[in-house]
Amino acid sequence: MSQKHVFNVTMTCGGCSGAVNRVLKKLDGVENIEIDMEGQKVTVTSTLDSDKLLETIKKTGKECSYVGVA
Amino acid sequence: MSQKHVFNVTMTCGGCSGAVNRVLKKLDGVENIEIDMEGQKVTVTSTLDSDKLLETIKKTGKECSYVGVA
Repeated sequence: MSQKHVFNVTMTCGGCSGAVNRVLKKLDGVENIEIDMEGQKVTVTSTLDSDKLLETIKKTGKECSYVGVA
Repeated sequence: MSQKHVFNVTMTCGGCSGAVNRVLKKLDGVENIEIDMEGQKVTVTSTLDSDKLLETIKKTGKECSYVGVA
């Protein structure tokens, strides 16, 4: 079953948010990605668990943390 | 023996260049990282081969390519 997971991610430009979007899009099991740059939030609809998603976002080199299920 | 490897990396703000710097800094075998945001170039002094360095930069979600040894 897919859930909506919310993450805090430090993003300061379209290049930052585009990078986060690209790495998440590559994962199997990610259905939707919403990026709120102003609010510094990324919401991922996925069947994957939050640890796997957080680990993937971390690989971008951005500071990030898990907020919870939306 | 360490070499200076040059990469083209699309970076548009300090958040972008900071992310690239952070992922490279974590690698064992990386001695120095120079980031030229205006020139969209990253120069890495390392004992690692260019493939390993490029793979690491790619994980940030930035568009990147290998230029050559400086």
